Amino acid sequence: MHKINIIHLGIGNVGKEFIKEIGEVSPSWKRKYGIFLNYCGMFGSKGGVFDAEGLSEKKIKNFPKTSSGVDVKEVLEAIADPFILIDTTASDKTLELFMLTFSHGGYVVTSNKKPFTQSQEQFDQLEKYFGKKIFFETTVGAALPVISTLNNFIDTGDSISEIKGCFSGTLGYIFFHLEEGMLFSQAVKQAKERGFTEPDPRDDLSGMDVARKALILARLLGKRIEIEDIKTESLYPQNMDGLTVDKFMETIRRFDNEYKKKICKVGARSRTLRYVASVTASSCTVGVEEVEKNGDLGNLKGPDNIIVFKTKRYDKNPLVVRGPGAGASVTAEGVLADVLEAAKFIYHS
Amino acid sequence: MHKINIIHLGIGNVGKEFIKEIGEVSPSWKRKYGIFLNYCGMFGSKGGVFDAEGLSEKKIKNFPKTSSGVDVKEVLEAIADPFILIDTTASDKTLELFMLTFSHGGYVVTSNKKPFTQSQEQFDQLEKYFGKKIFFETTVGAALPVISTLNNFIDTGDSISEIKGCFSGTLGYIFFHLEEGMLFSQAVKQAKERGFTEPDPRDDLSGMDVARKALILARLLGKRIEIEDIKTESLYPQNMDGLTVDKFMETIRRFDNEYKKKICKVGARSRTLRYVASVTASSCTVGVEEVEKNGDLGNLKGPDNIIVFKTKRYDKNPLVVRGPGAGASVTAEGVLADVLEAAKFIYHS
Repeated sequence: MHKINIIHLGIGNVGKEFIKEIGEVSPSWKRKYGIFLNYCGMFGSKGGVFDAEGLSEKKIKNFPKTSSGVDVKEVLEAIADPFILIDTTASDKTLELFMLTFSHGGYVVTSNKKPFTQSQEQFDQLEKYFGKKIFFETTVGAALPVISTLNNFIDTGDSISEIKGCFSGTLGYIFFHLEEGMLFSQAVKQAKERGFTEPDPRDDLSGMDVARKALILARLLGKRIEIEDIKTESLYPQNMDGLTVDKFMETIRRFDNEYKKKICKVGARSRTLRYVASVTASSCTVGVEEVEKNGDLGNLKGPDNIIVFKTKRYDKNPLVVRGPGAGASVTAEGVLADVLEAAKFIYHS
Repeated sequence: MHKINIIHLGIGNVGKEFIKEIGEVSPSWKRKYGIFLNYCGMFGSKGGVFDAEGLSEKKIKNFPKTSSGVDVKEVLEAIADPFILIDTTASDKTLELFMLTFSHGGYVVTSNKKPFTQSQEQFDQLEKYFGKKIFFETTVGAALPVISTLNNFIDTGDSISEIKGCFSGTLGYIFFHLEEGMLFSQAVKQAKERGFTEPDPRDDLSGMDVARKALILARLLGKRIEIEDIKTESLYPQNMDGLTVDKFMETIRRFDNEYKKKICKVGARSRTLRYVASVTASSCTVGVEEVEKNGDLGNLKGPDNIIVFKTKRYDKNPLVVRGPGAGASVTAEGVLADVLEAAKFIYHS
């Protein structure tokens, strides 16, 4: 039996689901691959708990109450090989822990976009571990095969002419309902009520989440680019950043008529609006776009993501991937698939 | 530099393109992964050539003239580790060579469906090497991420309720053109002229190629099933099997009216016809199906493949992959991606 120590950062929705899914697959991984994941450390924003022999179910269940103020850095420095650091946080402070992990021979699996979307210089530090020590499929489109597909294009000498798609389930939900006749403010309200938006919907409406995903794809294509270089269209003016959430939700009613008119106008020519990211060799843009109602992007319903790859070999007919690109259960599934990828690497041959 | 010996069976369209693509990626694999593929043996239906130091460009270019009657079994028994056997044939005789490869510590990458679609007993022999020693993404949908997506579902404890899709570019082309008003016999003729069919179009129209792909997916889901167990609808009656190809092409005109009527009838209720494979826990069927014109399958244009996965976690909104699922260039790309996967396994850690 091969034992792999797991240190886990970020015990939120995705993190909790990940722990549940580990429990479910554990027997079959032992049987099929001879791999045993020793879940031995968990860390939230207020500290963590570690037990080299594996955390008891009780300690896991009662976290963060069971947190004992252990320092994650000390754990990473002392932990026995082989080990994997899992990052299911949304923190911009974990890059340092990744580097510490690599320097101690460990692996990283992460659904956290932040370490890839800060300065180009920081990205460069990580890049040399890609395909070897760090796995991050879930940073774009959750478990949809996006990063792996892109890497296959690059590694097999294909040449990517365009990546285009809708990478926000939240904005997908809103634009789909605009098309169905809902007012903008209602669509945002409903998305918020159903848990599709961040607690402050401005985090979605600013387009920054989509811009970060576009940035990752652009950098994987070899572009040297910063988040500020991406032309990002916000769905509200900057001067609304100071409002309370309630006030913001009230104020956006003033955009209702504008969206209604736009949707009507483009609808008359069998087109609709989508919030689209587009990455080519020469440009990277994120914003509202008029698309064919019956095209791939226009056909998108509800919170699905879609990614359309055009390459030298997928030229007339692109390669298209579509499906839920967010949510705890599919994101955790993708993280777990990356853990298995890392585990196979660790133990193969 | 890590050297991997490559023994290659099947120097047809895909095989030749694979050799070309290896040449293109070779410098970047050396730089990025420190991997050097030593292309040292190539084998066609009439024998092969081998040089432990790597085949010269001249020997590769002038194959099969340069074939020197070497026996592939002897090569596999004597070759130095590490090595990968590549199977881009359509032969039903390579399973034995796979087993020989495994017993000598080698890896297999194959685009050939046959070793997976013979008896369940033979499949069982291969199964223990899945995810470890044998890579076969291109057996269904060429380089589209189908097998890897399916494996991720299984490995992460998701439960697949249905895989549905169109797995034949040829039949996709024909049904798309029927919908556009072309006669059945014309559509088949045009598909044949443009190289979308096998030399004898009955190989496509029988549905056997699709049935084989469905069989692979069903077996990966854990079904114990033989090709005869799949309800497969042929597009021509069995008594036309004895005709010459020319006579066959002439005779199918008699189906023109029938298809015209069917397409009209379903068209009136916004539906169309597709040649669909469907795999669930309790059934596996392959045949013509009436589908929504604006649904995923009905929207399929020309020779594209589509695969729709419904699982416990991808329930309301399935995971969908679409794109060219055949052709030398994308198939070779997929084979090469699998070679890199094997190569990383060989050299990691």
